[in-house]
Amino acid sequence: MTAASITDRSRASDLDAGDPLAGFRDRFAPFESGLVYLDGNSLGMLPAATAQRLAEVISRDWGTGLIRSWAHWMDLPRQVGDLLGEHLLEAAPGQVVVCDSTTVNLYKLAWAALDARPGRPVLVTDDDNFPTDRYVLEGIAARSGGRLRMIRTDVDQGIRADDVRAAIGPDTALVCLSHVAYRSGALADMAAITSLAHEAGALVLWDLCHSAGSVPVDLDGSGADLAVGCTYKYLNAGPGAPAFLYVRRDLQDQLTQPIQGWFGQQDQFTMGPRYEPAPGIARFTTGTPNVPGTVAVQEGTRLLAEAGIQALRAKGIGLTSYLIELADAWLAPHGCVLASPRDPGRRGSHVCLRHPDAGRISQALTRAGVIGDFRTPDRLRLGPAPITTRFTDVWDALDTLRDILETKAYVDIPPPP
Amino acid sequence: MTAASITDRSRASDLDAGDPLAGFRDRFAPFESGLVYLDGNSLGMLPAATAQRLAEVISRDWGTGLIRSWAHWMDLPRQVGDLLGEHLLEAAPGQVVVCDSTTVNLYKLAWAALDARPGRPVLVTDDDNFPTDRYVLEGIAARSGGRLRMIRTDVDQGIRADDVRAAIGPDTALVCLSHVAYRSGALADMAAITSLAHEAGALVLWDLCHSAGSVPVDLDGSGADLAVGCTYKYLNAGPGAPAFLYVRRDLQDQLTQPIQGWFGQQDQFTMGPRYEPAPGIARFTTGTPNVPGTVAVQEGTRLLAEAGIQALRAKGIGLTSYLIELADAWLAPHGCVLASPRDPGRRGSHVCLRHPDAGRISQALTRAGVIGDFRTPDRLRLGPAPITTRFTDVWDALDTLRDILETKAYVDIPPPP
Repeated sequence: MTAASITDRSRASDLDAGDPLAGFRDRFAPFESGLVYLDGNSLGMLPAATAQRLAEVISRDWGTGLIRSWAHWMDLPRQVGDLLGEHLLEAAPGQVVVCDSTTVNLYKLAWAALDARPGRPVLVTDDDNFPTDRYVLEGIAARSGGRLRMIRTDVDQGIRADDVRAAIGPDTALVCLSHVAYRSGALADMAAITSLAHEAGALVLWDLCHSAGSVPVDLDGSGADLAVGCTYKYLNAGPGAPAFLYVRRDLQDQLTQPIQGWFGQQDQFTMGPRYEPAPGIARFTTGTPNVPGTVAVQEGTRLLAEAGIQALRAKGIGLTSYLIELADAWLAPHGCVLASPRDPGRRGSHVCLRHPDAGRISQALTRAGVIGDFRTPDRLRLGPAPITTRFTDVWDALDTLRDILETKAYVDIPPPP
Repeated sequence: MTAASITDRSRASDLDAGDPLAGFRDRFAPFESGLVYLDGNSLGMLPAATAQRLAEVISRDWGTGLIRSWAHWMDLPRQVGDLLGEHLLEAAPGQVVVCDSTTVNLYKLAWAALDARPGRPVLVTDDDNFPTDRYVLEGIAARSGGRLRMIRTDVDQGIRADDVRAAIGPDTALVCLSHVAYRSGALADMAAITSLAHEAGALVLWDLCHSAGSVPVDLDGSGADLAVGCTYKYLNAGPGAPAFLYVRRDLQDQLTQPIQGWFGQQDQFTMGPRYEPAPGIARFTTGTPNVPGTVAVQEGTRLLAEAGIQALRAKGIGLTSYLIELADAWLAPHGCVLASPRDPGRRGSHVCLRHPDAGRISQALTRAGVIGDFRTPDRLRLGPAPITTRFTDVWDALDTLRDILETKAYVDIPPPP
């Protein structure tokens, strides 16, 4: 018997057998048999512990504890922020808090940065940054009388330090970039770009939506100033769970944010006549925190912490590298082009494939029981979340894709609007 | 046998026996026997249907539906907004949406109003408005180079139309007031004040946190421009559930809000290069909506709709009037002064009592198994939420208070910090 070919399913089974994280799959709620889920980068799966904990929080803490439960709920956003900081973001305590949405957090921190750099009217981002980042910054630039400078990025390869170097200068208040690009999955060099920005006197705001929980993030070590991220992707906290934000400790009391809410107020329950921002990270919060959502972030983070971010990273590289190998062998001949960095060190945990019919292929794939997603105009995005995805899932997905391409099963599907 | 005195417990039992809403109490999760909960105006009780529905949404829609569930989640914030509009706010469809927190919604709408009134630098509120309202407006006034004008209010009686008339003029962009005051429970005349503001060319933003679900609100009928409100009080949607906002239909496409998020974008999933606000109410949303929280708003609203806002209002008046009667008879002799309007038509569903030792009395009350709350500096706030409170709860609470005052059971408790 000859050695298994790279494209044999037995190779995937062998990889699963040797996967130290394989057991984590059973810690999540099961879904229908036969379905392959490669969209954990849009909505992570439901941890069984989260379902149980939420039921307890709702029936016990809310139902019977009632208003008394605020005695322990008040600290929850910062406790869970610290947990995220410790296990996934390399941020010392007191710098991360769970609150609001990514959009609202971006808005608060971008204004805080702009205010902290008077005489510097320019915000810098890249033209492939996630839409909400670009739109938020565009709005702030317009209102402040400043300007949004858009770096033109190679969408498949992502932002590079040289791109940033050329775009910043003494007019720059803030550089706002995604750590992992939402389409290509390209991983930016956080430390190098942060240094460049600091040399130019600018602050940096990192969007960690596609990196938190999938790749190691070293906020303190890289000298990052500000960061935001969502929790419903790799952190498995559920649809619309609250986001998080990071403000480096030494900046906290120098910065103020524009949404002056009662949760950001010093001595909140004195309810005094004037807004006085609380010391520390609390000043970056606004209104009443969503308790069940914050609890879900806590449970998701605990699970990832148990797996360990280094092990998750290793598996993410394994899964995406395997996906690319199969795509090279099976899909490239049908016109699918890799639209993500080939170097695993420059890639997060999802991969994009370009094809002129990507919209219809994505629909055919869903009908065939494989869930990925489509990103305009011509990208099929496949996100094998490390904690829940098996190598056999990747094999099954790519085998299905191969079949769709070979049989042109998508040609009768109307293209997306 | 003589007729029952006003202070006999049998009178409370009789009132409960005749209460058409009495059955609703059993639709909520039970808590420990003997506890009296008069803080539904801070955190409403847990509807049994909500606990069940949340478990389904989490296990089925999220756990097995995964990303596919966004197909029906996308419309949820507007569907639930319409439900609120139909049953509790008298707002025709397409004008209410559930999103963000009250604080963030206040921020968005106050900016939208200010931008829509160029040349009018003044925001008007009152010095007893809820802290987050005052702080948010203070921040916007400062950043816009405008001014916050603070009406001095009689805290016990609330804002009156004449107070507003004297404070507004051709310099006024926005009047922002609470419909029901958070301390006194005083109910403002929404229609009269809105008319006054319109005569002066200003817009009005109503904070409905303490009125939605407890008193009839007629947004369309009063000509209100803008409104916000929370859902964790009388709407029973749980700790930190998303808030709502209202923008009158004819204003929607004239106004823009400052937090330009991807959920407010026209053709959201085209992810185009520039922010173009969606038509209608959607442009006032920002980031990914919290799905479980929005579902909880839906369930809470359905329950209130079933009870009917007129019946809830009648019961709210009955409960607070009874509370005041007992306070007059039992507590006034011990120095407790009514700090809410005596006219039930000018009062929402909670009542404040003033006493120099209110902080310590509130703690003694909690220790004795009656939960109300303390509001600085000297107010005991009792909120008998109409859908869950029995007349015997009010009797038991006031009897306990009487005992605490008579025995001075609070004197050994340290005063609040």
